[in-house]
Parts: sequence; structure tokens; C-alpha cells
Amino acid sequence: MPLTHPLIKDGWFREESDEFFPGQAMRLRVAEILHAEKSKFQDVLVFRSTDFGNVLVLDGIIQVTERDEFAYQEMITHVPLFAHPNPKKVLVIGGGDGGVLREVLKHDCVERATLVEIDESVINLSKKYLPNMAKSLSHEKVQVVLADGFEYLKNTAARDEVDKYDVIITDSSDPDGPAEAFFQKQYFELLYNALNANGMVISMASENIWLNIDKLRSLKNICSQVFAVTECCYCTIPTYTSGQIALMCCSKNPDLKVSAPHRAESRDREAQLFRYYNSAIHSASFVLPRWAADKLNGV
Amino acid sequence: MPLTHPLIKDGWFREESDEFFPGQAMRLRVAEILHAEKSKFQDVLVFRSTDFGNVLVLDGIIQVTERDEFAYQEMITHVPLFAHPNPKKVLVIGGGDGGVLREVLKHDCVERATLVEIDESVINLSKKYLPNMAKSLSHEKVQVVLADGFEYLKNTAARDEVDKYDVIITDSSDPDGPAEAFFQKQYFELLYNALNANGMVISMASENIWLNIDKLRSLKNICSQVFAVTECCYCTIPTYTSGQIALMCCSKNPDLKVSAPHRAESRDREAQLFRYYNSAIHSASFVLPRWAADKLNGV
Repeated sequence: MPLTHPLIKDGWFREESDEFFPGQAMRLRVAEILHAEKSKFQDVLVFRSTDFGNVLVLDGIIQVTERDEFAYQEMITHVPLFAHPNPKKVLVIGGGDGGVLREVLKHDCVERATLVEIDESVINLSKKYLPNMAKSLSHEKVQVVLADGFEYLKNTAARDEVDKYDVIITDSSDPDGPAEAFFQKQYFELLYNALNANGMVISMASENIWLNIDKLRSLKNICSQVFAVTECCYCTIPTYTSGQIALMCCSKNPDLKVSAPHRAESRDREAQLFRYYNSAIHSASFVLPRWAADKLNGV
Repeated sequence: MPLTHPLIKDGWFREESDEFFPGQAMRLRVAEILHAEKSKFQDVLVFRSTDFGNVLVLDGIIQVTERDEFAYQEMITHVPLFAHPNPKKVLVIGGGDGGVLREVLKHDCVERATLVEIDESVINLSKKYLPNMAKSLSHEKVQVVLADGFEYLKNTAARDEVDKYDVIITDSSDPDGPAEAFFQKQYFELLYNALNANGMVISMASENIWLNIDKLRSLKNICSQVFAVTECCYCTIPTYTSGQIALMCCSKNPDLKVSAPHRAESRDREAQLFRYYNSAIHSASFVLPRWAADKLNGV
């Protein structure tokens, strides 16, 4: 008997949320439901779409599609890793699909990448249905920890400087599920304390400038209270509602800006490694429409 | 009795097109249907949405919503007008809602703006339901011509150089309705011949990099066969499927680049005049993700 899911009807998956995107909705056409469960932490759905490859949905919100995931994974990874002069130790909070890890491993200078994911179901389903992302989970430089990211950070903050991180990437789901704590001031304080002196952090913002600029401003204000540098960039991605997602980039060291690459690959190597990212788009992604820039910078 | 429309069901307007965006669909929640008709040229629908203000739909495709129209209107207007050193005569093809004209008139150097719209219904409905756009239609510098843009250009091409245009803006609907001719080589040849020696043109591209990069490449190739300079930029806009729209910018004079402003307003004046555009976003809007840039540039 074919699987069913309450958000799939007449062959279309519907993404609707009165809280996150009132009055607008995204639909993707479904070829086949591959998996549907209530995991210990959230509602998990995987389906094969007609035009976007396999799709992972958590608590009703699209997390990745195989067709466009590279946009998000590349930008959330390479913006901080190229802004940092020499990232050796990288921590990923969430990101159980493995896509961010895949991008982290493209930096030869990275010696160790740790992934902290709370939901083992996401890891196992990604291995099965998103193999191009999950392949990085078994890389020799990678350590996978099944734990609550918030708790993991508390322990890290208590460690010696030498055991802290150069870059932390928060690749979480939206704040109405298990990731709720990742959008509070206390979380950014833990991030701060888990980074070494030149450390940087990037966090998906759940909102973008079009969906809810006030929530984005509030998140930026929280980060600004903790970090020396906080700047907002974005990537375009068609299967996130409104077609883009904001990323909040913070640096502990006031002299290390996040909005321009500190290092760069040759043009040939960029072409081999990346589909979305290059040095020019790194800087361009921080240029926001006038009204949004003014609002976020408190004008 | 309340109005009905076949694309509005259970309180939601649905935008679906197997030709233009297969496998994905956008929905907006409807507060009230304001107008529905088959005009002489196309299916015309106006509704009040719950979260995006009034919405104009032609042949089933969203043209403008009051909440985000400024993004598209500002970018399609100010990119060519600021790239041009001294635009005095501007022609708008389509654009019966008046939004592009409103932006054109923000340039004091413009002496005359001509709008050529085929469908009088669009003009009349915009005056009634989109007053913040349509107000510019009655400005003293504006001439409104009810005609087929293609035919109008043929006549202009036969005129003396002094009667030709500095900038032409093609603000059409998608190519499956009355705007079909606007995406052919012959149309760009007419545009070329209707421009004076330093003339520039910008055209909405109907596609974007995410929806169909091959169609976009084909359009860019057509333009490159006619114009000395052809470059592609984009603006983000949440109510166009995939969240953005590509704009094709062409210049007759090889020394006049379109990808950077030739003129600029002061920062204060930018803040008064614009919500989306500024000098920085002009240049940033031409920076495309690596795969898209390579594809469009024929790599």
C-alpha cells in the first residue's frame, strides 16, 4: 500500500505556515512518498518530487531538495570558511543530511569536522535517500555526535582554548521544532564561548528579508550583543518560501570581517569545487536591498 | 454574488504552469476577488490578498502585488536609467499598471516617457485597484499609447535619430500571451533600431536562473547577436515563482556598460526615492551563482 502524509494531497506536497509565511504557500509535485514517520523529535517526511529530486521535510518545512541544495550548503559553509584565514576545526550543529559537511571537506586546511545532530532518523534517512549529501558523514576527518547541540556547546565552552572551534555552522531546522533554542541570546553566548579567539559563526536565520524583516532584525540584534561583528547575507534558493534564506554571520575578532573572502581558490579550482559560490558572490551576497539594509542596521 | 475565478479555490489563488515552472507552484491567500474578465487580449484577474495587498494576474500568472512590486519596478527601471549617462527619452513597452513609469519619473533628466500598452483593461483596472502605480499614467511628461508594442517599434525605427529613444524598457507579460513576439530576435532588432546611438534596453526575461537556465541562455544569445553589450541581472521578489526574475540588459554602445551605475544619487536622496535600488545593489545584481554565470557566458 502506498504511504500517505497529511501534507500531501492530489499529488502535491503543500508547505503552509501561518506563523512563518502567512498568506503564501509553496507546492511541489510528488512522484512517490519514500518515507513518513514521527521520529522521537519531529515529523519526518521524504518524498521523490517530479522535478526537484528527493526532498526532506521536517515538521512540514522543506529542508533540502536534491536539485537546489547546493545553493544553501555552499553559502552557509564557504562564506565563513573563506572569510576565516585558516579554519582547522569546524563544528556543524544540525545538518544531519551531511550536505554542509560535504562542503566543509572541500577545504584542505580543515583537520577535523564535528557534526552534532539530535535526530538519528535524519542521518539514517539521508544515507538512504540523499546519498550525495550523506557520503561525507563517513569521511575520515568527520566525527558524528548524536546529541543536543545546545548541551554539546555547553561542554565545549568549558574546554581549553585549544579544543575550541575556528568556525561553527548552525544548520538547524526552524524554531518551532527541536531547534527552538538556537534562536535565543543564550545560544549565541554558548557559540561565542565555544569558539577560539578568531572564531566565526554562521547561522541560518529561518526568516529572510521578504518574509519577516522584523524577526530578522531581532535576531541580528541578539547576535550584535554577543559578537564583535554581525552581518547578514543571503542565498537564493527556489524551494524555500520567498526564494531565499538569510544567513547571520558573526565574528569574535573585530578585525576579521565576514563579508569578503580572506582566502580564494583559483578560478579553475572554483569551477571544479563549487556550483554556487565564488569570490564575487561572497561579497555580493551581503548587499541587501536598501530598505532591508536600513532596517537591519537600525536606520 | 461574490465573483469567482477558476484559479481560486478554497480561498487560495494558485499559480501553476507545466510550461513555465513544472513541478512547483505558488499560492496566495485571497481575501476578496475584485475583478475577473476575459479582455480582448487575455484573462485578467484582480484580487485583494490577505498579506500582499492587491494582486494583478494576467493569463494565470501574477504580474504585481502591492507589497513587493517595488523590487521589480525599481530594478527594471533604475538599472538602465542609472547606467545611461543622460536619459531624456524613455519608452516603456507593456507596463500598463504604471509602476515602471512611476520609477522613470524619479529621474529629473527624463523629458518624455512614452508607454505603449496593448490592453486598455490593464490600464483601467490599475487606475482603480493599483493607485500607487497608476498615478504616474497621468503625469505631464507621460504619453500613453494604446497599441501593439511590436507595431509601434516598427514605426519608431523608421524615424530620424533625434526621435529615437535613450532607454527602452520591456515590461511585458510572459511569452504565452500577447507578449509572445517580445522574446524573438526580430523584436530585439526593432528595439535596436528604435534606440539612438547610446541607447540601452532592458527586458524582463520571463525565466530566471533557477526555473530554466537554458531558455535564459537562449534569450541572452539572441540579444548578443543584436547588441554590442548584453548582460543579465536579477531582482529577488517573493511572488514570482522561484523568488526572483532575470532581466536582460543590452547596450548599443560597446563603451557603455550596463552593470555599473554611470550616475548616482546622494545617499540621502537614494533613501528618499528608492526602497530596493541603490548603487551597490546595481552592481551586485549582475553577480550570478557560478554555474549560472558559466552557462550564460557559454563556458
